[in-house]
Amino acid sequence: MDVDALLSRVRARQPAALARAISLVENNRPGFENLLAGLHRHLGHARRIGITGPPGAGKSTLTEQLVAAYRGQGLTVAVVAVDPTSPFTGGALLGDRIRMESVALDPGVFIRSMATRGSLGGLAMATGEVCDLLDGAGFDRILVETVGVGQSELDVSRLADSTVLVLVPESGDGIQTLKSGVMEVADLFVVNKADRSGAERLRQEIEVTLGIRRGNAFRHVRAHHGAAGGRGAPARVAAVADGAWEHPVVLTVAAKGEGVGTLVDRLEAHHGWLAASGVLRERRRARVAQRTRDVLARAALRWLWDEAGAAKLVEDRLDALAQGRLSPYELAGELVDGLRQGERV
Amino acid sequence: MDVDALLSRVRARQPAALARAISLVENNRPGFENLLAGLHRHLGHARRIGITGPPGAGKSTLTEQLVAAYRGQGLTVAVVAVDPTSPFTGGALLGDRIRMESVALDPGVFIRSMATRGSLGGLAMATGEVCDLLDGAGFDRILVETVGVGQSELDVSRLADSTVLVLVPESGDGIQTLKSGVMEVADLFVVNKADRSGAERLRQEIEVTLGIRRGNAFRHVRAHHGAAGGRGAPARVAAVADGAWEHPVVLTVAAKGEGVGTLVDRLEAHHGWLAASGVLRERRRARVAQRTRDVLARAALRWLWDEAGAAKLVEDRLDALAQGRLSPYELAGELVDGLRQGERV
Repeated sequence: MDVDALLSRVRARQPAALARAISLVENNRPGFENLLAGLHRHLGHARRIGITGPPGAGKSTLTEQLVAAYRGQGLTVAVVAVDPTSPFTGGALLGDRIRMESVALDPGVFIRSMATRGSLGGLAMATGEVCDLLDGAGFDRILVETVGVGQSELDVSRLADSTVLVLVPESGDGIQTLKSGVMEVADLFVVNKADRSGAERLRQEIEVTLGIRRGNAFRHVRAHHGAAGGRGAPARVAAVADGAWEHPVVLTVAAKGEGVGTLVDRLEAHHGWLAASGVLRERRRARVAQRTRDVLARAALRWLWDEAGAAKLVEDRLDALAQGRLSPYELAGELVDGLRQGERV
Repeated sequence: MDVDALLSRVRARQPAALARAISLVENNRPGFENLLAGLHRHLGHARRIGITGPPGAGKSTLTEQLVAAYRGQGLTVAVVAVDPTSPFTGGALLGDRIRMESVALDPGVFIRSMATRGSLGGLAMATGEVCDLLDGAGFDRILVETVGVGQSELDVSRLADSTVLVLVPESGDGIQTLKSGVMEVADLFVVNKADRSGAERLRQEIEVTLGIRRGNAFRHVRAHHGAAGGRGAPARVAAVADGAWEHPVVLTVAAKGEGVGTLVDRLEAHHGWLAASGVLRERRRARVAQRTRDVLARAALRWLWDEAGAAKLVEDRLDALAQGRLSPYELAGELVDGLRQGERV
């Protein structure tokens, strides 16, 4: 199948075509760049929602419930489940998410798992490009679910419009997370398994921490307005007029569907705020800029190795490098000198 | 301090100079490449030992015991403790390893922790360069301890001469690990906390799995010898003559120092095998080649962004990119065309 034919079928959201296109993109196989180039002008329809949190927080169950809720509204949904974990922990983390059988036969839902033993940087980029593909295919919602290990919660927040951080009362993860700065990536908080003891306390801890952050923003606004002329408007009003997002904390029992409707409403409200405040445009612009930098770097390195002779350069000098007569840094200097002069190395 | 002065002090293993040099290297600050270039011809003295395994396996305690054992032999030791984990799990994994107080005041020991919220790919490269620095500084042993999450156990095996995989009887990690293919990275296995029940069973499981692998090697050797002339020598003898490494499984109770002497002996034997078989030379040569490729790629990308105008290219075209009129892939095509013609973009 040529790229144009595949593109048409992707745009029609044919499952087999989507699966094939994702494999092309994941593995950078011939044609993947033309495919993504062809989809680029269709980007921006989907709302991208990241769902992250520690192992065992119930992210998959919550994702499944969100899928059902969006389907109930007649929206199409794609799910990308990202597993950045190692074999040591992989089984446990994977265990609870190969399910989603309740929605597996619905043509309005597409589910894809991504995992790798390769580079995590590569996984983040591949996930971003797969989201682009699904956005270009016309899905209304893209849910990206990932376990928070390594820097994966940071990666997911970079590719999402709205990021949901899912915590659970037990295990003390909550407090640790609140201390650690990972809160910064979240637009919405979920306390899942809220029928267990400690849910209310965790909610309060989150809100206290958010309040401290809000307090800082408040002082910031006040200082700013003072400097701008000291018109004496109450700082609190200024903060609201400034349009800061008030991070909600939603209590859910995902296994029973409790609280899911509220979460859907809060996500809707967040999208409204993103659009009205101009933050959506900023986030998406930053995302395109980052994607472009990544794509340019990948293309330039491929040129360097495959065409410009860098692979042969390393091979030719490997004896000297291995014997300590030449360092990689000196060779890099030679390479860059050659690039400066527009020469092939 | 200029780079030459710093280099001399690093070669004298002055702790303050080592700390400063590592910061230079970790953060790619001016002079770091000259420093590493100056150390390159001194590489190859240190034996690099990777220590990996799941959280809670007792890697830090074992590392501390290995340090004490090597110090008892009059050897200098550097420890690099790599934490690739996220804030969700970071606290728990870090908890048990900021110790090593028993050796902290010994001038023959240098300990450094590395962690990042940035790219994991970057962490692996920084760890490799820090190991080079410590090797160039003249340490006899470099122990690299890392929690097995993401692809960190793969990363550590790539930068080590010998990789030790530490498992514990409880928690079922053992079986999962044996299934997962992570065994491939290990040269030696440790069953730590071997005074708990299940240690002997885990050892047997490992040995059965190793036996299956050995069986495959056995068949491979036989097939090879058959093809080479069918001289009828027993395949088992051929395998031994071929010099395959017999992966040991060492039972330890690191907290009590039990089994540590045996592990030191097995590491010594592994080094002897590496040297005699030519594998050491191969591994180090592959490591230099990989380091060179990474260094060349980093230098070429820096040139591309800072000198060749790629940053400005993205900035200038960001409106078109964000509005969907131009795709990153088309822009990458333009960039590579320019590189082909030796032009600045």
